[in-house]
Amino acid sequence: MEELKTRLPKDAVSVNPTILEQHGRDESYHAPHNPDAVVFAKSRDDVVEVMRIAAKHRVPVIPFAIGSSVEGHVIPVQGGISLDVTAMNQILEIRPEDFLVRVQPGVTRTQLNRALKPYGLFFPVDPGADASLGGMAATNASGTTTVRYGTMRDQVRDLEVVLPGGEVIHTGSLAAKSSSGYHLTGLFVGSEGTLGVFTELWLRVYGLPERVMAIRAEFPDVSGCVKTATAVLGAGIPVARMELVDERIIEAVNAYKGTSYPKVPTLFLEFHGNPEGLERDVQTARELAEEEGCLGFAFDSDEESRQQLWEARHSAARAFMAQYPGRGMMTTDVCVPISKMAQAVTDARELLDREGVYGAVLGHIGDGNYHALIAVDTKDPEDVARAEAINEQLVEYALACGGTCTGEHGVGLGKRKYQEKEHGRALLVMKAIRSALDPLGIMNPGKLID
Amino acid sequence: MEELKTRLPKDAVSVNPTILEQHGRDESYHAPHNPDAVVFAKSRDDVVEVMRIAAKHRVPVIPFAIGSSVEGHVIPVQGGISLDVTAMNQILEIRPEDFLVRVQPGVTRTQLNRALKPYGLFFPVDPGADASLGGMAATNASGTTTVRYGTMRDQVRDLEVVLPGGEVIHTGSLAAKSSSGYHLTGLFVGSEGTLGVFTELWLRVYGLPERVMAIRAEFPDVSGCVKTATAVLGAGIPVARMELVDERIIEAVNAYKGTSYPKVPTLFLEFHGNPEGLERDVQTARELAEEEGCLGFAFDSDEESRQQLWEARHSAARAFMAQYPGRGMMTTDVCVPISKMAQAVTDARELLDREGVYGAVLGHIGDGNYHALIAVDTKDPEDVARAEAINEQLVEYALACGGTCTGEHGVGLGKRKYQEKEHGRALLVMKAIRSALDPLGIMNPGKLID
Ligand SMILES: Cc1cc2nc3c(=O)[nH]c(=O)nc-3n(C[C@H](O)[C@H](O)[C@H](O)COP(=O)(O)OP(=O)(O)OC[C@H]3O[C@@H](n4cnc5c(N)ncnc54)[C@H](O)[C@@H]3O)c2cc1C
Ligand SMILES: Cc1cc2nc3c(=O)[nH]c(=O)nc-3n(C[C@H](O)[C@H](O)[C@H](O)COP(=O)(O)OP(=O)(O)OC[C@H]3O[C@@H](n4cnc5c(N)ncnc54)[C@H](O)[C@@H]3O)c2cc1C
Repeated sequence: MEELKTRLPKDAVSVNPTILEQHGRDESYHAPHNPDAVVFAKSRDDVVEVMRIAAKHRVPVIPFAIGSSVEGHVIPVQGGISLDVTAMNQILEIRPEDFLVRVQPGVTRTQLNRALKPYGLFFPVDPGADASLGGMAATNASGTTTVRYGTMRDQVRDLEVVLPGGEVIHTGSLAAKSSSGYHLTGLFVGSEGTLGVFTELWLRVYGLPERVMAIRAEFPDVSGCVKTATAVLGAGIPVARMELVDERIIEAVNAYKGTSYPKVPTLFLEFHGNPEGLERDVQTARELAEEEGCLGFAFDSDEESRQQLWEARHSAARAFMAQYPGRGMMTTDVCVPISKMAQAVTDARELLDREGVYGAVLGHIGDGNYHALIAVDTKDPEDVARAEAINEQLVEYALACGGTCTGEHGVGLGKRKYQEKEHGRALLVMKAIRSALDPLGIMNPGKLID
Repeated sequence: MEELKTRLPKDAVSVNPTILEQHGRDESYHAPHNPDAVVFAKSRDDVVEVMRIAAKHRVPVIPFAIGSSVEGHVIPVQGGISLDVTAMNQILEIRPEDFLVRVQPGVTRTQLNRALKPYGLFFPVDPGADASLGGMAATNASGTTTVRYGTMRDQVRDLEVVLPGGEVIHTGSLAAKSSSGYHLTGLFVGSEGTLGVFTELWLRVYGLPERVMAIRAEFPDVSGCVKTATAVLGAGIPVARMELVDERIIEAVNAYKGTSYPKVPTLFLEFHGNPEGLERDVQTARELAEEEGCLGFAFDSDEESRQQLWEARHSAARAFMAQYPGRGMMTTDVCVPISKMAQAVTDARELLDREGVYGAVLGHIGDGNYHALIAVDTKDPEDVARAEAINEQLVEYALACGGTCTGEHGVGLGKRKYQEKEHGRALLVMKAIRSALDPLGIMNPGKLID
């Protein structure tokens, strides 16, 4: 503590109880645990200092950004230093010709998109929360556009990383592709603060499409939605977004927004392209939807109408949780091969009904990634246990068909118990890498791997 | 040797001089060196045996597939066992609905595409040689379609890997995305046989596009080609292929094929999509090309005409080298940010002229990746040194503007000397990972990292 206070700016170190508490929890149902101190880093040099001091005294360091992660990622289960990077929030460079930007880790995705708009550019990855780009890289976040643009891992060209000992490295380059050396960028993306702290990111950005077409299609059951989605993918239409919400979400949105959408499973699509190509794509999509018994099909390219068409998707989680004030949100996050989606989503819907929990199903179905959203009474251990059992059942199903226990939220605390089952002996390789890079075991201990 | 012979099928182990020699060289100008033995593996179990025996006796193992790599990757510089996997060439599973295939590592890309065609599917990565999918994964190969479909790393969902000690792991899953554990698939792709042997691969495949449009545009100078390419990318047209060849290549192709293409730098484009969308894309591309002083612009969607339009690109390397019988091919492989392409390619063309070597420039310009192809008199040390100096100058330029020394060929022996300059302290992280996974240092020693 003394050393932190002498080596860092005065106001950078805090042990204020409120601040400790804010850094002891995330947005999930996981039990909080306070850090011993919070350090607010303003620069890479601050981060280097913290890492050196932490290594010297073998104290845990937990990188902290927006704290919107949902599996206990930022909870300092062994105490130590919560390293808050939110003040490192400068957009350092925009290179329109190269479709690249350089940012500090605390920049949020909406902040970046505001800055890009005048250049006719945008950054595609869009988790539900307004997360930081550093946090999103650390969890390999993704969202509604992943079916077209990929996950965070696909956007990061280079990371500046401060390693556990205080050493600073760059993991990549500005080249669009490379076969030079091991792919460290891919390794550090998704490492959840266990291998080092990101202090700068070079990210890909994209030209705003000439035209955007939003589609909303209603079906009697979730399987109709999923089958249409699969058919659209199979037809080779370059879909930009592909989302599903079930009837429970529609019900919640109607109550929340005063709308009156038909209470049926709904598929949301978005296509990007030129007007001529889009017209054809919409036609094809409509034919495919009708073959699967579509009840209603609406589309529009005007920005305001698109917002309206997609309204039920945008406010899904908020509207659903608003029905159950005081309850905590648990969200499952499996990802399965596309051919298993229809069955998986139907089963999940039935499972929630059978167990009688407050649950809804929604998902990024173009990627095979869906969530069961469960409103949990965190004060009732039985209710928590019931929700956890559902989570487990969905994970078992996903692993049995070759999928993963977490498509986008990450491991944190909540998915550790599935790591051995999912990765088998590969877990030993992950452990060997972690020990090689962090021999003292001070980086976000207790997360990702046991 | 005794142990190899008793533990493996009789005909699997060879010390026949011709066979040793075949496994002591690749397609490059690098000096050959024979292995002590060649083992022809027929199954994962054979590979496991070899790895166990090699670990026990601390003998180097060098995975060997088609041997088409161009930086000395497969040359057993310290002797040992060349582990030939070409007999592991079964296509194990095709899953059209999931857009996935499971293959053994020795399957070649044309073999796979033949098998996929009846399903209306294709595999996009297309290095000039008919390489194996295991070798392509091990070098993170890419090619003409990378601007749209990505590199090998983007196609591999899961690898079965036999580790140095004989342990078998899987690096990924069949899910389209995952945030579970460290991204081992990305790490093993591009590892050039230094971390383990791939014995099975799950790969993404794609639906054949509804329509394909090929374009050929001629310009007075390379800079016109590159500027048009950049403008097409900027316009957000989802281009599927984007290639450049200079006037030397055209000259060579005319001689080789008896054609009479205008001897000027030429840009080749390919778009995939629906007919309506493509028409608009071609129009836009033509306008952009004309703004850059395009001399000739031709396009066609019929398969035969497309082949003809692209003829000069397809036979580029072969045609060029055919002019210089007896000489060896050296090819540079830098990749730079798009904004540097016009200058980089112009400078490269001038450098070749100034040095008076037999050289041509061609490249995957949508990715910023270009090659100077040099016909080297491998028996004349001065000629080799001159070519190497050119290579070095191009690498220095690429690194200075944030690029990479190798966009697709990999490090092998030839690019080792640039690793420190390109990666700096990150090289220590790569070394730590290599030591953690191969503590005995028996996997393809002397390659990638010193
Ligand atoms: C309503 C809601 C909707 C959501 N929807 C999605 C979704 O659609 N898709 C999705 O992927 N996620 C979603 N999430 C989860 C969350 O937004 C993501 O996990 C996000 O990436 C977390 O970013 P953050 O800035 O909040 O990071 P934090 O929560 O602060 O940190 C997350 C992890 O990253 C590490 N970390 C943070 N900054 C750094 C750094 N600079 N260097 C190294 N490590 C660092 C932390 O140690 C921690 O392990 C949602 C969450 C909520 C609450
Ligand atoms: C004319 C020509 C054009 C070319 N064009 C391109 C191009 O456009 N793009 C491009 O990327 N490359 C190109 N190349 C280079 C070459 O084709 C690629 O590097 C290719 O990926 C090598 O595959 P291979 O099967 O020949 O592997 P090999 O040469 O046999 O091996 C390459 C490396 O992979 C390792 N390896 C092989 N199999 C395995 C396995 N099963 N498990 C683990 N490691 C393994 C080897 O140890 C070695 O380090 C070209 C080469 C030539 C001769």
